[in-house]
Amino acid sequence: MRAGFGSARTVDSSVSPRLAAPMIADNAKQSQSLHIAPLGGVGEIGMNMMLFRCGEDYVIVDSGIRFPDANMIGVEVILPNLAILAAINDKIRAIILTHGHEDHIGAIRLLAQRLDLRQIPILGTAFTLALLRHRLSEEGLSSGVTLEQIRPGDTVEIEPFTVSFVRVTHSIPDCVAVCLDTPMGRVIHTGDFKIDVNPLDGEHFDEDKLRALGDEGVDLLLSDSTNASVPGWTRPEEEVAAGLEEQIASWKGRVIVSLFSSNLYRIHSLFKIAQRNKRIMCLLGRSVQRYVAVGRETIGLELPAEKDLVDVKKLHHVPSHQQLIVCTGSQAEPRSVLARASRGEHRDLTFGEGDLVLMSCRKIPGNERRIHRMINDILRAGAKCVFGKQAPIHASGHARQDELTRMLDLTRPKCFIPVHGEYSFLLDHANLAEQVKIIEDGSVISLSPQGITQIAQEQLEPFFHDGNTLGTSDELRIAEKKRLAWNGVAVVDVTIDPSRGIFLDLKIETRGLFNDEGRLCKEIEEAVGKQMSGQISDMDVEELKHYAGMLVRREFRNRIQRKPVTVVQIQAAT
Amino acid sequence: MRAGFGSARTVDSSVSPRLAAPMIADNAKQSQSLHIAPLGGVGEIGMNMMLFRCGEDYVIVDSGIRFPDANMIGVEVILPNLAILAAINDKIRAIILTHGHEDHIGAIRLLAQRLDLRQIPILGTAFTLALLRHRLSEEGLSSGVTLEQIRPGDTVEIEPFTVSFVRVTHSIPDCVAVCLDTPMGRVIHTGDFKIDVNPLDGEHFDEDKLRALGDEGVDLLLSDSTNASVPGWTRPEEEVAAGLEEQIASWKGRVIVSLFSSNLYRIHSLFKIAQRNKRIMCLLGRSVQRYVAVGRETIGLELPAEKDLVDVKKLHHVPSHQQLIVCTGSQAEPRSVLARASRGEHRDLTFGEGDLVLMSCRKIPGNERRIHRMINDILRAGAKCVFGKQAPIHASGHARQDELTRMLDLTRPKCFIPVHGEYSFLLDHANLAEQVKIIEDGSVISLSPQGITQIAQEQLEPFFHDGNTLGTSDELRIAEKKRLAWNGVAVVDVTIDPSRGIFLDLKIETRGLFNDEGRLCKEIEEAVGKQMSGQISDMDVEELKHYAGMLVRREFRNRIQRKPVTVVQIQAAT
Repeated sequence: MRAGFGSARTVDSSVSPRLAAPMIADNAKQSQSLHIAPLGGVGEIGMNMMLFRCGEDYVIVDSGIRFPDANMIGVEVILPNLAILAAINDKIRAIILTHGHEDHIGAIRLLAQRLDLRQIPILGTAFTLALLRHRLSEEGLSSGVTLEQIRPGDTVEIEPFTVSFVRVTHSIPDCVAVCLDTPMGRVIHTGDFKIDVNPLDGEHFDEDKLRALGDEGVDLLLSDSTNASVPGWTRPEEEVAAGLEEQIASWKGRVIVSLFSSNLYRIHSLFKIAQRNKRIMCLLGRSVQRYVAVGRETIGLELPAEKDLVDVKKLHHVPSHQQLIVCTGSQAEPRSVLARASRGEHRDLTFGEGDLVLMSCRKIPGNERRIHRMINDILRAGAKCVFGKQAPIHASGHARQDELTRMLDLTRPKCFIPVHGEYSFLLDHANLAEQVKIIEDGSVISLSPQGITQIAQEQLEPFFHDGNTLGTSDELRIAEKKRLAWNGVAVVDVTIDPSRGIFLDLKIETRGLFNDEGRLCKEIEEAVGKQMSGQISDMDVEELKHYAGMLVRREFRNRIQRKPVTVVQIQAAT
Repeated sequence: MRAGFGSARTVDSSVSPRLAAPMIADNAKQSQSLHIAPLGGVGEIGMNMMLFRCGEDYVIVDSGIRFPDANMIGVEVILPNLAILAAINDKIRAIILTHGHEDHIGAIRLLAQRLDLRQIPILGTAFTLALLRHRLSEEGLSSGVTLEQIRPGDTVEIEPFTVSFVRVTHSIPDCVAVCLDTPMGRVIHTGDFKIDVNPLDGEHFDEDKLRALGDEGVDLLLSDSTNASVPGWTRPEEEVAAGLEEQIASWKGRVIVSLFSSNLYRIHSLFKIAQRNKRIMCLLGRSVQRYVAVGRETIGLELPAEKDLVDVKKLHHVPSHQQLIVCTGSQAEPRSVLARASRGEHRDLTFGEGDLVLMSCRKIPGNERRIHRMINDILRAGAKCVFGKQAPIHASGHARQDELTRMLDLTRPKCFIPVHGEYSFLLDHANLAEQVKIIEDGSVISLSPQGITQIAQEQLEPFFHDGNTLGTSDELRIAEKKRLAWNGVAVVDVTIDPSRGIFLDLKIETRGLFNDEGRLCKEIEEAVGKQMSGQISDMDVEELKHYAGMLVRREFRNRIQRKPVTVVQIQAAT
């Protein structure tokens, strides 16, 4: 297990009392209804987590992370507020995973730092669990968890929940929707899906099962809203394969494809294209290698074996026109293969004339600037670069409006709640249906034979992980980090003569502040020194620190319109 | 003049010797050719500045700023490297402005901090100069500059340059292209343009003049590449007006339009729409009010007078269906009217049902996340929101491919250099022409009767302004700011007994670092204290500081994988 300072801490973050009442408190009334609370992913993209309570028993569907915006410095991932879960730790009967994307499973390894997971089985399909197992074992966490594999079509009893799994298609293999039957009614949670009518692994979206559930009656549908603003039907993966082959077959030089490495359908397509076009595949980047390795053992999709691949170190033996390099970094993540290669910083990959770079992806909002910068660098090197908008070489994994309507038609729910999306997506999804309720993270809704009502709405503070430590915004000092970056820090060293109660001297040292070889500091030392002389006789150490800090901040503000963070220390001399 | 610490400093940033030779050094050979050097805006979007040298005489075309990416904390604007200009201050004969956008004129007020501008006339059209004058007077800088108004069609002698001005159309009124005739040949710099064949102010794009210049012969064309990747012709502003009217005429409640406030064409259109639809206009936000005020006095476009407007304080007297609010904040700038209103933080504007918000703009790359967040908040409040992609309510100000081809056809240059764009745009623009040269900021090209050659290419360090102080990355400690935000700061107070040369005590105080009520610091104090005991007798104060800092960083890294910035102070005690 990676050293995680704070990992042994008890949970002391307080849960809002308005959420605590319906979600945590022991209360006889709770057994009369099913409570549903999105802790993440509803009203935002990412960190999906849905909590279901029936009486004193809880299940969680999905447990994901999201990534911070560019201006949130010092944070690597964001995850749902875990304080609620900590408070009900011993009543959580299962964590159910719909598929293996990080925004659905990525928080499990962090949950382990705040919760005791030993009594909580984690349910998922073979591929989903294999990915999770791989990740947990990297962090030395495997021994603390119980993974229970399910298959589409399975039904599992988790009293009082009866949980059945329905095959859906998406951009990663082995995905399921979840049907929860409870004494209060039936809820279907779609997970992420699109309807690919001809999936490359032959694992078909199970319309029959969904229609059958609809025939029996569905009280509530929770359905993926990511593409609810987009009309039409998502491009099938088969068409993407054709688009990629058109580009690759007609190119005389080397081809480099960058993609979301969890999309094994696409890697399968590229493998077939390589075979047909007499190219040898090279997988570059740990992430794409990991997904292929896990996929080989768990899913029925033809993927390149080790013997079908060429190691990057031997790539120079292969003529350019026989190379097909598949790599990570489509979002220009700074340390990714593609980003490093574009900056000329990758040992084994540099770009030049004769190279074709296919960006088989979309630009995730927030990454546009750095992706553009990376593409400019690739072009500067002389390579050609084709983006997913310029040719049919990418497809979204999320249902568009016609597919969403199909899902509604199949399940015919009494009530529908759009999930997995920003507010505007939820709104557009809601417009496709009747009997809709829009809620967001921090809501609690109640399902009973009388129908559905919203019983709470509260702001949920997310948790943060800085790469090492998990904590609240306050614990990780997120706001102070930003203040440090904007305003810099001034360390103030005050020397006094305590026996006579007089000020003697003051020294200022700064970091992250305008630097003019100390002239500004010297000016401020003099100005503050004058004000402190004769003013300090009545002060204790804390008052003195406070006073000196205030004077220093004021003098900086007067001169450079910035109030640095101050740290004051008092020295005694005689 | 706003207090600017450092404003009186001499320029000490060194200019790269490779650029200094062709651009700065006295050299008889220079008189045999025209040297052209982009200091900004070529290979990037923003901070446009082009330097022309003929013998010992220089002119500058445009002088703009750009805005930092979201992850560059502590910087408000970025501008071209001013060190070169400082070195040739007394030889700059003019600064020529093509139009009044901030990425073309915004650096003038900052130039004044590093250069003596008193002997350098600044040439521009009436509206451009009125905007500049307004801005300079806000900062108390008006007295130091000479503004010389020109009109399209004018020719001005700035020995050895003959400068003539050609009317072009764009998204701000009163724009010109610049033709520089020199002993070495003729150069046309288009400035920013699109070809709006029916401009709302009747100021037509001067095709005849450009064709005539082409007939006489053009040696070099420098042309706007912003939309070079987009096929077709830009939507005319007249069509935008129709699109806006369609939305507004059919809406029963209040309408709020957000736009780039320099687009007075659009404000004119909205004013006419308001009149036809019996609505009263309210201008919200300093920026939109300033542009309208300056525009009323300088351009021939019908704009609302004070009597045509309603003050926001009296808006509650006007029925909702008669209100048309025009406001700033289309890019969700945090302190803008629209952003504050969306967060419920604006005193005079809140959103609710019955409101229609028209986003008459595009999303500038890098702003997408915050714009989406803002729109979600507007929708949450119950308002309807229409973005420029959903209806024809916005048009770009920059020529698309067909217009760019027209510019090339009119001027028929012997050589063409695409400017004003990221590298990928330059490349796409280059594909429209023959005899093309792609260069980027930091290049120097030479035009002589023998043709065009590139004679230097150097990385140019930009300058930064933090809201108060102008300086290089180093002077403003940009890298250290980021380190502070990522890693926090640890202030280490070491007490020694200098007479005996022994370590006595160590205290650590942190900011922006994981906070566990001091337990982590205490652990590290003990670990470092142990290592320092008996180790320090030979060290002087600087060695001691260095040693203690190294130990503290190492102990933090071992525990929380973070090496904080350290500031060490040594106290003497006995």
